[in-house]
This record gives sequence, structure tokens and C-alpha cells, in this order.
Amino acid sequence: MRVVRSVSEMKVAAMRWRACGQRVGLVASMGALHAGHRSLMAHARLDSDITVVSLFVNPPQFGADTEYSSYPRSLDTDSAVCRKAGADILFAPSVEEIYPPGFDTWVDPGELGSRYEGAVRPGYFRAVGTIVLKLFELTQPSFAMFGQKDAQQLALIRRMVRDLDLPVDVKAVPTVREPDGLAVSSRNHLLTPAQRQHAPALYSSLQEAAALYSQGERRAQALRDSILSALADAPGLEVEYADLVEPDGFRSLKETFPGSLLIAAARLGEVRLIDNLPLEAPADGP
Amino acid sequence: MRVVRSVSEMKVAAMRWRACGQRVGLVASMGALHAGHRSLMAHARLDSDITVVSLFVNPPQFGADTEYSSYPRSLDTDSAVCRKAGADILFAPSVEEIYPPGFDTWVDPGELGSRYEGAVRPGYFRAVGTIVLKLFELTQPSFAMFGQKDAQQLALIRRMVRDLDLPVDVKAVPTVREPDGLAVSSRNHLLTPAQRQHAPALYSSLQEAAALYSQGERRAQALRDSILSALADAPGLEVEYADLVEPDGFRSLKETFPGSLLIAAARLGEVRLIDNLPLEAPADGP
Repeated sequence: MRVVRSVSEMKVAAMRWRACGQRVGLVASMGALHAGHRSLMAHARLDSDITVVSLFVNPPQFGADTEYSSYPRSLDTDSAVCRKAGADILFAPSVEEIYPPGFDTWVDPGELGSRYEGAVRPGYFRAVGTIVLKLFELTQPSFAMFGQKDAQQLALIRRMVRDLDLPVDVKAVPTVREPDGLAVSSRNHLLTPAQRQHAPALYSSLQEAAALYSQGERRAQALRDSILSALADAPGLEVEYADLVEPDGFRSLKETFPGSLLIAAARLGEVRLIDNLPLEAPADGP
Repeated sequence: MRVVRSVSEMKVAAMRWRACGQRVGLVASMGALHAGHRSLMAHARLDSDITVVSLFVNPPQFGADTEYSSYPRSLDTDSAVCRKAGADILFAPSVEEIYPPGFDTWVDPGELGSRYEGAVRPGYFRAVGTIVLKLFELTQPSFAMFGQKDAQQLALIRRMVRDLDLPVDVKAVPTVREPDGLAVSSRNHLLTPAQRQHAPALYSSLQEAAALYSQGERRAQALRDSILSALADAPGLEVEYADLVEPDGFRSLKETFPGSLLIAAARLGEVRLIDNLPLEAPADGP
């Protein structure tokens, strides 16, 4: 596995692969790699000549400086994970390489970028869209893998690819979960043992709403109420949002719809947790 | 010459060229092709295996609907111009193909997009950046030609290419002028004969300021004053802006600087004219 630290080296390599017709699969990450990333890498390897894992903690995605500086960083461990997963390239550029002086061109993800995660974290999706576009340009992938866990990010990247005609196939991989249902996330290790014990309530609240759906409930309000009432019973969880949305545009629904997604976000102390659960397989599912 | 009307056909062709390692040169246009475009095409042909001319009147670039609907359209004439210039592909997609329902991902060109032309025409450069990025993705060019005439657009596209790591070389071609100095533009034919007679005053005001510079004047204020006073004497010309800027970021300068650009915009009745004149060849010139 080759570690690429510079943008210019990455560009040269990508152009060479492109000229040779090699099929590149990209896994974009902020490091702190876990079982979710390993699943993305395993899927990428199956279908690519060259698997690129990017590792970049993207400053504009973070609100407060403290959040950015406290984000877990572990290049040596991450590098070992990538090597073991069979990655060919680990692309880990510096902030200065990615955002040169005078940088001021951004992807504006429109209204989709201002809802839910975008409402809680203003500017977040603008930063995500921009860095993902840059990584696509730098690595020239045929396809890129993203986790279903970050469903709004996935929707936004799919729409960016469609709207800007990017020649990249976006593939989604199901959320990897702990045995107790908690979605795997690099934030989970920031939870105290007591918080960790209550964290699976987020997913189980979605499962309870999905069970109602299986019993015939079709009204979004009833499903939302079910999630909120389950979360109200979970010690320490503060709900940020809970809703039923259509999975492409993340518009709030009044009734279930093919592919409808239950989404929820909550805080446990300082840690934000998000999760989602599709009610039916979407028509054009992963 | 092949005329491509659909986005999907364009994508397939571009991917095929890319797989064969063919070098594509792009000339992006809104049609109403004139000597300036012919110069861009001639330069593109010299250095490409395949010359693509795109022809798309981009609705978001226009403020009022009337301006968009009155923009000159002449596909048959344009097609003949492209054929004669040796273009291989004329890409003329429909608005519906370029902006499918739900389209909402934009290039935000930052502060550079809000100055001068961007101040006079809010949203203009966001629309320009977005369509140019889309055309780059759809046609996969090795290089794209732009006229020095639209200097702020050129600066913005260069910066977008740098900021977003687009694998496209942006090349500038000098402004083509009528014998009396007026920069060639598709808007010129909208001038009345009397207006047309006074229109060269815009360029000559820049030349007068450049002459002052040659005589040793280095203060921007003196150069600006010279332009404004020359334009005040020109019948029917209403100045929108006149300034001395650095050519990459279009920041207003207090003193001349290597590569400084004199810029001016004026209205003659309903017609906007813009022009510019570099005081010295920029260090990394075209």
C-alpha cells in the first residue's frame, strides 16, 4: 500500500490510472477507521482495480475549533487498517494542500443542505460537498462508497453527482451495527460507559416505529410520535430531530412512501448520534 | 462535425475519448458565434485531437426573463461557423437536459463572484461556475479556451479549476477587436448605428489610461479618473464601473502591480459593454 501525502502526487497517479483504463474505487474518510469503513473498503475492493482510501479531517465541516481539534486522529492505526483491508492507496493530504491560500470556491448543496443535519450544523454540507467533489477530481474514481448510516450525506452526494454530471457511481453500503444495535461511529468511543449503555435506544426507537409500520401504520405523525416517546424514556438522550423523509431529497413526509426513511438525531452529553432506518427497500436501492 | 443534443450521448462520447487517451479541447459558448469564438476554436484545434464547441444559453445567468428570451439564437448559422472552423462536435443540449427537475447543486464562487460583474448581475457567476463545471464533466476536456475579453469570468474559472482540482487546463485567448477597437461581442449588433459609433470610446478610455501608465503614472486613482473623464465625454455611455485590479482575484488596487488590469463596464442604452486592458503582461500570462 502506498501512502500519498501530496495533491500533486495524487493527481499524477490518478491521471496515470485513467490513461491505463484502471477502475478506481474510492472510500472517503476522516480517519478513526472502524468496522463501517472496513465494510466500505471490502465492498470497494470487490469491484475495483485500485482501492483508494482518503483520510482527511476537513476543517470546514466543523463548527467550533475545539470540535475539529478534538476529532480523533490515528494515522498509524488507520494505515494498518487500510493495509489489512487491501487498500492500494492511502491518500492523506495536509489541510494546506487541500485549501491553498485564497481558496474560495464551494459546492452549494441548495435546500437539501439546510435541512436536518444541515440545520443543526450550518455550513456542514457545503463543506462535505466541496471536499467530496475535490476528492473525486483528485482520485478520478469510477465509483465511491458511502455508508447508509449518513443517509442525508449519501442523498446529497448522489444529487451532487447527478446535478454536476460527475462521472462517478455512488454506491451505498448498509450501516454496520454493534451487537446491541448501535450504529458504529468514530464518536461512540467518546461516550462514557453509562452513556454507551443507553445509546442503543436511538436505533431501538426507530425499530419500534418500523414495527408500527409493519402493523399497518402509515401516518408519519404516528411514527414520529413513537420515536419521540421511546426516546423520552431513554436516560440522557436529548432528541434533535426525528422524522419520516423521502430518501432522495430528505423532505418531510405526511404518509409513508416507497423507500421512506425514518431518521433521528440525539445528543448524549456532548456526543451527537444519528441513525436511520428505511421502511421499505427504495425502488432504486443499493 | 457531429451535433450532440443529449447529455447521455455526450457522456458516452467523452468516456470513449477518455478511454482512448484522446485530447479534447473545449470552447464553451452561448452561441451567436463571432470572430472571438472563431479565434477560440482555431486555438483549440491546434492542440486537440477533438474540438468540442458547446452551445448553451444558460438561463440562470440571466436576470430578467426578457433578457434570456431575447438573447440571440441561431443554431443553423452557429453550426455552419463551427463546421467551417473545424470543430468535431457541436454540443447543444436543451435546458431540460442540463437542469433536470430538482436540480439544486451550485458552484459558489465566493467573494470574487460578488465583485464588478457579480455586483451588477447578482447570481451571474454562480450560474457561470456551475455551467462551466458541468460542461467540463460532460465533455472531459484536457483544456478549455476562454476569451480575455471576459476577464473576470476567466479569473473565476481559473480559480475554480485550482480550488476544485479540476483536471482541465484553462487557456486564455486575446480579445478580438473590430478595426475601431471595439471588443467583438454578440451584444454589439444590438447597438443602434449611432450607439455603435460611440461604443469604441470604452476601449479608447482604457488605452488613454494605459498611455498615462506608460508615461510613469502608477496611482490607481489617477488611472481610474482618466477612464472616467474619457467616458464622461462619450455620448450615451453610462459608466457602471472602472477600476484597476489584480487579474487573479479582481481586487481593487491602489497602485499598479505586475499584471494589473484596467477594467470598465458601461451601458449604451439597453446594451452593456465590458472591456479590459492589461498594463503589463502577467507573470504567468496566457
